[in-house]
Amino acid sequence: MTAGPSWVQGAEGSGFGLQHLPFGVDAAAGPVVAVGPAALPLRPLAATGRLGDADAAWFDTPTLDAFLAAGPGAWATVRGALQRLLGVGAHLPERRAVEPLLVPRDGVRLLLPVTVGDYVDFYASIHHATNLGRILRPGTEPLLPNWRHLPVGYHGRAGTVVVSGTPVRRPNGLRRQADGPPSFGPSRELDLELEVATVVGVGSELGTPVPIGRAAAHLFGVALLNDWSARDIQAFEYQPLGPFLGKSFATSLAGWITPLAALAPYRRPGPAQDPRPEPHLCTADPWALDLRLEASLQSATMRATGVPPARISASGFADLYWTIAQQFAHLTANGASVRPGDLFGSGTVSGPTPGSEGSLIELTRRGERPLRLPDGGDRGFLADGDVVVLTARAGDGPDHLQLGEVRGEVLPAWPVDAATCEER
Amino acid sequence: MTAGPSWVQGAEGSGFGLQHLPFGVDAAAGPVVAVGPAALPLRPLAATGRLGDADAAWFDTPTLDAFLAAGPGAWATVRGALQRLLGVGAHLPERRAVEPLLVPRDGVRLLLPVTVGDYVDFYASIHHATNLGRILRPGTEPLLPNWRHLPVGYHGRAGTVVVSGTPVRRPNGLRRQADGPPSFGPSRELDLELEVATVVGVGSELGTPVPIGRAAAHLFGVALLNDWSARDIQAFEYQPLGPFLGKSFATSLAGWITPLAALAPYRRPGPAQDPRPEPHLCTADPWALDLRLEASLQSATMRATGVPPARISASGFADLYWTIAQQFAHLTANGASVRPGDLFGSGTVSGPTPGSEGSLIELTRRGERPLRLPDGGDRGFLADGDVVVLTARAGDGPDHLQLGEVRGEVLPAWPVDAATCEER
Repeated sequence: MTAGPSWVQGAEGSGFGLQHLPFGVDAAAGPVVAVGPAALPLRPLAATGRLGDADAAWFDTPTLDAFLAAGPGAWATVRGALQRLLGVGAHLPERRAVEPLLVPRDGVRLLLPVTVGDYVDFYASIHHATNLGRILRPGTEPLLPNWRHLPVGYHGRAGTVVVSGTPVRRPNGLRRQADGPPSFGPSRELDLELEVATVVGVGSELGTPVPIGRAAAHLFGVALLNDWSARDIQAFEYQPLGPFLGKSFATSLAGWITPLAALAPYRRPGPAQDPRPEPHLCTADPWALDLRLEASLQSATMRATGVPPARISASGFADLYWTIAQQFAHLTANGASVRPGDLFGSGTVSGPTPGSEGSLIELTRRGERPLRLPDGGDRGFLADGDVVVLTARAGDGPDHLQLGEVRGEVLPAWPVDAATCEER
Repeated sequence: MTAGPSWVQGAEGSGFGLQHLPFGVDAAAGPVVAVGPAALPLRPLAATGRLGDADAAWFDTPTLDAFLAAGPGAWATVRGALQRLLGVGAHLPERRAVEPLLVPRDGVRLLLPVTVGDYVDFYASIHHATNLGRILRPGTEPLLPNWRHLPVGYHGRAGTVVVSGTPVRRPNGLRRQADGPPSFGPSRELDLELEVATVVGVGSELGTPVPIGRAAAHLFGVALLNDWSARDIQAFEYQPLGPFLGKSFATSLAGWITPLAALAPYRRPGPAQDPRPEPHLCTADPWALDLRLEASLQSATMRATGVPPARISASGFADLYWTIAQQFAHLTANGASVRPGDLFGSGTVSGPTPGSEGSLIELTRRGERPLRLPDGGDRGFLADGDVVVLTARAGDGPDHLQLGEVRGEVLPAWPVDAATCEER
């Protein structure tokens, strides 16, 4: 069952109806919730007692951290109060109190909504891992022996997670070259990764694993993530300790966090898994989320001539091999603690069919089969001035949900001379 | 030239003389500096204007972050003022004002002194990388092709960096087994790593590399680090994205941070490097730090019978192949930003001779040649109840520096049944 209609004009069919109610943080107003074409600041609502027994302190801060830490009861209280206040059944005095607080959603300046204490990125799509195995290790078994036993993952750089809209500068680095030694310069294989991040709400204690059955008590919501990747830098550096500078220059997170509660109608049975999951990854009712993901690209030329971003990939989040709950249980199985605002990405979400690959290295076979853009340009990897847009949708019709987008423009690299070795 | 003597009783020869003055944070008093057997709270000094033009706000917080962010001028001001106040040449009224503030250093309860926004670990010892290559990939070239071209590194978990003294619980995880499939349970190959971490002071802007020549303007100090490692968990999980749960359960940092200024007399010419460093890693005057490092181990039996920790390794930090400045320049070469309190570890510091290996996997050849302890016990890897102590020293004689130790006891793993899969 989904929530009913809202009295907010334009909410119906917008993807931001009463069923959705994603949370963000505005630079001026602090925590806000989106409803249709509007955003509603939460501070004045909580301060005047209109959010049930919500603690005003949850929203009197420049992040969602305190609200996230308050736990599932708090999340349900606030979501329930907002659905009542914004629903067509709201009492007129309440509606009159709320209506003047609404601001246009497109006028909101969204900040990074949480303090990302730690950012982990998984590799949970079997199609992505298989595609990369075929491209990077042709002629061998594409999936490594550990892949079906645990969700492979690694830590990324928390301090370079940026909010959607932040431009991303092409990194310099030591690039692997097909012939000859590596050379330092701008990445020639800058890529996007179409991902969904899960946002931790309630933290955990160091030394104490969180059993998979209690994951839901810790996880607040999901948001789109673009894990920008410089493939040539990554290819040279990554043995034996994994990706480092090929990833750490920037990771873009949507400004709107969709609560897991909003996605309850879109839960699906988890994927078939063979072999049977290890004990710490096994649960009686594994679930996946039925989100349809898309990546689009708009070159500078397209932008200048008014051509909208062109879709380059479409995949399904329910195709993920390792579920969100398994990712989380694995992350804490060794006793590692989590904090409110911690993120873990799904890894690139690719599907089984052509056009469903969530990165350019897969879509173009490492540049061998470039994509043709509407402006006539070819893309093996990203060009300066390209804007990448990630979107996701759950459901259809007036009640569907549209996740907050992730958008970022590629800026040219710094000249190498300016960045390096003036003392030579 | 080093600083002169202090009027504080017992400072001479303690390793914590006027030349040292490391910073920490006491649970009650906040930021403190160590001098001899005493600790001196900085809040009352700054509040009464005794630290020159130091801003009292730098110390009116529960971390060193604000002081670190204030930069090299601030660090020099405070260090200079402390050396005057605590030196034998101090004016009597000043000495009388300072003396009542001193507290016993061993009564201080040190907290994690900085907010670790991001924690990176390098792999910068050529002896360590060579030893591991020989053990893990026998019969092949031990150093991978990238190793001499860049400081290989990866991101660790910032949220599980703990201060010295915090017990460390043995992690459960999927362990690689020589025969048969992996199995979930307590690590059987729990190891220490003898490392030195560098603490970032001044942050940098996203998208803007920090040239190696400007590293000194950003780096505040160094501290010992034990990068606990579960080798069997790491061995199964680490391909292709690097170490994850084999490391993320805990990383122990010394409570006292030694300013780089204190180590100026112990700077040595940097190591020979072949091939010539890449442009972003090259500098006219590469420097290393002449620190003598030791790792010691005390079993529960030794502790019960009053036997002190026994030295198991001694190595030299100046043997490191990649310098601190190179590590830092590399970390930011792709435009990744840093924040005050960010850490980067050197990686295990091993020397070229037997007994200088900074981890048990090297010392015991992955358990094949166990160490004999004074209590008659053997150690291939760490046992429950073992206490690991890391120490470091610069110089000799009355002026020598003793870095703050890192100490941690191994607690038994949680029973696996309690941690996992109750829903099966």
